[in-house]
Amino acid sequence: MRIVSLAEIQAAIVPEAAVEAVKAGFVAHAKGLVHCPEPTQIVFRDEGQEQHGECHVKSATWSGNPYVAVKIASGSYRNAARGLPGAGGMVLLISADTGLPVALLHDECWLTNVRTAAAGALAAGLKPVAKDATLGVIGTGTQAEMQAEMICAHLGLSSVAVWGRSGEKAAALGGRLRAGGLTATPMDTVHEVCHASAILVTTTPATSPVVQLEDVPGTLHIVAVGADTPGKTELDPRILGRAHTIVTDAHQECLSNSDFGAAVRAGEIAEDCDVSFGEMLALAEPDPRMAEDGISVVDLTGMGVQDLAIASMTLEALGD
Amino acid sequence: MRIVSLAEIQAAIVPEAAVEAVKAGFVAHAKGLVHCPEPTQIVFRDEGQEQHGECHVKSATWSGNPYVAVKIASGSYRNAARGLPGAGGMVLLISADTGLPVALLHDECWLTNVRTAAAGALAAGLKPVAKDATLGVIGTGTQAEMQAEMICAHLGLSSVAVWGRSGEKAAALGGRLRAGGLTATPMDTVHEVCHASAILVTTTPATSPVVQLEDVPGTLHIVAVGADTPGKTELDPRILGRAHTIVTDAHQECLSNSDFGAAVRAGEIAEDCDVSFGEMLALAEPDPRMAEDGISVVDLTGMGVQDLAIASMTLEALGD
Repeated sequence: MRIVSLAEIQAAIVPEAAVEAVKAGFVAHAKGLVHCPEPTQIVFRDEGQEQHGECHVKSATWSGNPYVAVKIASGSYRNAARGLPGAGGMVLLISADTGLPVALLHDECWLTNVRTAAAGALAAGLKPVAKDATLGVIGTGTQAEMQAEMICAHLGLSSVAVWGRSGEKAAALGGRLRAGGLTATPMDTVHEVCHASAILVTTTPATSPVVQLEDVPGTLHIVAVGADTPGKTELDPRILGRAHTIVTDAHQECLSNSDFGAAVRAGEIAEDCDVSFGEMLALAEPDPRMAEDGISVVDLTGMGVQDLAIASMTLEALGD
Repeated sequence: MRIVSLAEIQAAIVPEAAVEAVKAGFVAHAKGLVHCPEPTQIVFRDEGQEQHGECHVKSATWSGNPYVAVKIASGSYRNAARGLPGAGGMVLLISADTGLPVALLHDECWLTNVRTAAAGALAAGLKPVAKDATLGVIGTGTQAEMQAEMICAHLGLSSVAVWGRSGEKAAALGGRLRAGGLTATPMDTVHEVCHASAILVTTTPATSPVVQLEDVPGTLHIVAVGADTPGKTELDPRILGRAHTIVTDAHQECLSNSDFGAAVRAGEIAEDCDVSFGEMLALAEPDPRMAEDGISVVDLTGMGVQDLAIASMTLEALGD
């Protein structure tokens, strides 16, 4: 079994190729070529039973792909304050022929971050917007930064508005994005960010909504990335109630783990109102509804096929 | 993250300590201290859609244990004919405090084999038998050999009767067991093995019963280890219908994946007739039913807590 380090992985990955690989994975899933077993979630709790982190194990098989992937991504929100990495993990690629491990990509959660940001870029891309449109980012962590970078690169945007609970962290993220060549403006309220933006991406571990219906203008395309375990939610359920289109990457997991499920349970939307992200990406022509005014929401929990797609691409790029 | 090789792992493990560690895991599970998320199973199929192997991902958390385990064991039945190992894999230990990976035990499926054999030894030990009793073994693979060794060591037995579909492989297994100091006799039929034995362990990947009710004497304690994915089964459902006691390690998984479920679906037994293995092991005094004449069956599918128990023990034995 080959063990590949983070440095080797980072040298092998081109961001736009990651977006294309992840898109191919979602499209293959929509065509029924992919099987993603139900993910395993382990929640870490402190002595007061408060959740302080989580471990996700996701896997996928893909008809025609020589590998099966098992991905482990795990961490604690307490780590940053201790000077530790927020998350770690690895992707194991197994031969679908021999069942034996072929390569352990010791990505320390980096591939998970990239494939999550790649899905965010694809989700943002469902909405046609002008190149001078602003991307709003709610959250200030690693994923907020990667979403901003990959969405802007994928859509050719250059203007970002940032909000975080910590003004200091929002300012720091703004600085990092400016260093990367973007125009990034930290703002004081979620309301300001939403009204400045054509597309909004939410990337927090919030357990109660951070974006309220009153914050949202008449037209906004929202990509909700943060909520991925039961109890997490970022969006006021009324926002989904008002949306003309709701897209989910994995219907069942979104129902259990994220804003889509929270809005269903709040009675704001019907359980079967969502459209499949893979099916949207597979369309030869963009869905005309997405060009309409109004609110649209893409709710992403993350799927094993993303891990398989990006890990397979990595191993191929590394060569023998 | 520390990466530990198979050689280091093998040097650190004492078989009887493995049995005790696995017992502690089952007992903790029976006391509600352990959480085992539903395992992930990936089935490998050939072009004719025949199953040729599988990947199991199992995980567990244990209140008071500093680690969380995620275990991957994977392989193909076709490998032996190609001169490849039957299975490979690893156990990842994650800190329950930081959520970060601590150690990757690259056990190549060996710890899975040991913890499975340890559970078999504990299951065999539920039945009081004389030291001159014979252990019957159905199957001739790695797990058959390890079950024979660990059950005999744990119960102080020295006589083994062996049957396999391939007489050649049965003879070879007999030779290996004799080299290990046991009296091992390959036999021509399952019926002969069952009638020679007080305890029978079945360790095949069979998809239709290999032991029929007509093969079984009036009194026999059966430990069924082989069936662990949907479609696998080793025992004639009527054997479970005739048993005075049926023990399962994981009720729900046994219902989906093994002989217990097959007998329920055949209408031979009620879905709620089984006794918890962990609860049996937790008893201060042996269950008096187990000393009675008649048929008893322990159906084991394998649980993440076994992986956590043995991996934690390994890491502790290795020291810092």
